[in-house]
Amino acid sequence: MRVVKSVSAMQRLALQWRRRGVRVSFVPTMGALHEGHLSLVRRARKLAGTKGLVVVSIYVNPTQFGPAEDLRRYPRDFNRDSELCREAGADFVFFPTDTEMYPGKSEGRYSTYVVEENLSRAMEGEARPTHFRGVTTVVAKLFNIVLPDIAVFGAKDFQQATVIQRMVSDLNFPVKIVVAPTVRERDGLAMSSRNRYLDEQQRAQAPVLWRAIQHAQKKVVAAKRLLDAEKLRSELKKLIEQQPTARVDYVHFFDPQTFMAAPKATRGTHLAMAVFVGKTRLIDNAPL
Amino acid sequence: MRVVKSVSAMQRLALQWRRRGVRVSFVPTMGALHEGHLSLVRRARKLAGTKGLVVVSIYVNPTQFGPAEDLRRYPRDFNRDSELCREAGADFVFFPTDTEMYPGKSEGRYSTYVVEENLSRAMEGEARPTHFRGVTTVVAKLFNIVLPDIAVFGAKDFQQATVIQRMVSDLNFPVKIVVAPTVRERDGLAMSSRNRYLDEQQRAQAPVLWRAIQHAQKKVVAAKRLLDAEKLRSELKKLIEQQPTARVDYVHFFDPQTFMAAPKATRGTHLAMAVFVGKTRLIDNAPL
Repeated sequence: MRVVKSVSAMQRLALQWRRRGVRVSFVPTMGALHEGHLSLVRRARKLAGTKGLVVVSIYVNPTQFGPAEDLRRYPRDFNRDSELCREAGADFVFFPTDTEMYPGKSEGRYSTYVVEENLSRAMEGEARPTHFRGVTTVVAKLFNIVLPDIAVFGAKDFQQATVIQRMVSDLNFPVKIVVAPTVRERDGLAMSSRNRYLDEQQRAQAPVLWRAIQHAQKKVVAAKRLLDAEKLRSELKKLIEQQPTARVDYVHFFDPQTFMAAPKATRGTHLAMAVFVGKTRLIDNAPL
Repeated sequence: MRVVKSVSAMQRLALQWRRRGVRVSFVPTMGALHEGHLSLVRRARKLAGTKGLVVVSIYVNPTQFGPAEDLRRYPRDFNRDSELCREAGADFVFFPTDTEMYPGKSEGRYSTYVVEENLSRAMEGEARPTHFRGVTTVVAKLFNIVLPDIAVFGAKDFQQATVIQRMVSDLNFPVKIVVAPTVRERDGLAMSSRNRYLDEQQRAQAPVLWRAIQHAQKKVVAAKRLLDAEKLRSELKKLIEQQPTARVDYVHFFDPQTFMAAPKATRGTHLAMAVFVGKTRLIDNAPL
């Protein structure tokens, strides 16, 4: 496995692979890798096949963090991450600096952004107003640098995956997007790099997101008619906030294609939530 | 020469060329071709070489027109245009419909835009607030569909060419941008598809833009010290508006890299202007 740090070296390699007809599978990450990421790398490995190549990028992208967010304390451990990538089957790790990715930004010489103006407005976009603009911009850049045939994203960031799919389709990127399922701890907590912010007490309370989702799924299956989403939301909020350090940011029922709020919850309705556990904001989602 | 109308067919061809290592030169146009466009196609032909391919796109992009602008009456003559492309050395003409380029837009299912937020604000961006967002978006799409190695733009749309260069650099598109010189009529009028809106009297007055530019160039060469830009602007405005149907929209002196307004005009300062001749808005520019 090889580590590439410069944009121009990475793009040069990508152009060579393209000319040789090598299939490239790509997994963009912010590092702090856990089993969820590694499942994406293994999926990318399968999709690339034995003759193809797997590229993992490790880059904590500043433009997707708000001014009051955890950019500075976001966990970073490159040596561990790159070893995990190697074990999971990556051929290349792209590990650029901010100066490589956004040259001249501090002097105002970076000025182009990719914006998705519909699906990115609700939920995470409402809570984090410049978040998705940072995500779509960095992913567009990474696609142009790595030139992948396939890119793998995790379903845990469901809205992100949907926004990226819309961007790829709207801007005609010749990249196939694969969304791989959320990987969970044994108690149901969705794997996330931010889980390591939780202290022992908070960690014990954090599985309540998944329990709330399962509760909603069961109710929908058992229901004789459509459930009122507002009522179900209140019920889930109550269930979640029984945990002393948990506070709901949002619980949202919606159509997974259009992201329009669903007044009724039924099979196929999507449920997503963001919950503060202590100061740590956790998200989770699933179809009902 | 072959005409391709669907996005998927064009992108499939482009992916094949890429795999075969074929060099692709690209000229995006809105049709209504004149000698200026054809000089770009011939330049693209040279840059592609004998083994390479030249693609010209002909697409009147709705997202770069304002609601009160000339989208509907913009001149269209595909048969003439494609014949001119062939003669100038094009191998492929990409001629998509709006439904191909912006599927689902009228139903709100198109939602991704590329925005440049610095260089695109002044001049044409001030006069036409959503213009450059439409330009950067469609050019990003066309780059992803045609996958060119080189793209050729005209210097007449100087701000457009600069915004595109910034977009390509910021978003890491693996495309080399070439800017080719403005082609002029014998009386100095910069070639433009919009010149055909001019009646005989207006056409006779339209070369005043170029005369004003030459006037400024001579003054700068002759000047013993830096010229006050505000004074020179008033002088040019007066000169231009001596033509009975001409009305200045803007006359702007600026640094061609940063687009910052230049308080003093000197060699290297860039001069750009927009002038209504009757109801037709003409633009021109040159370095001093």
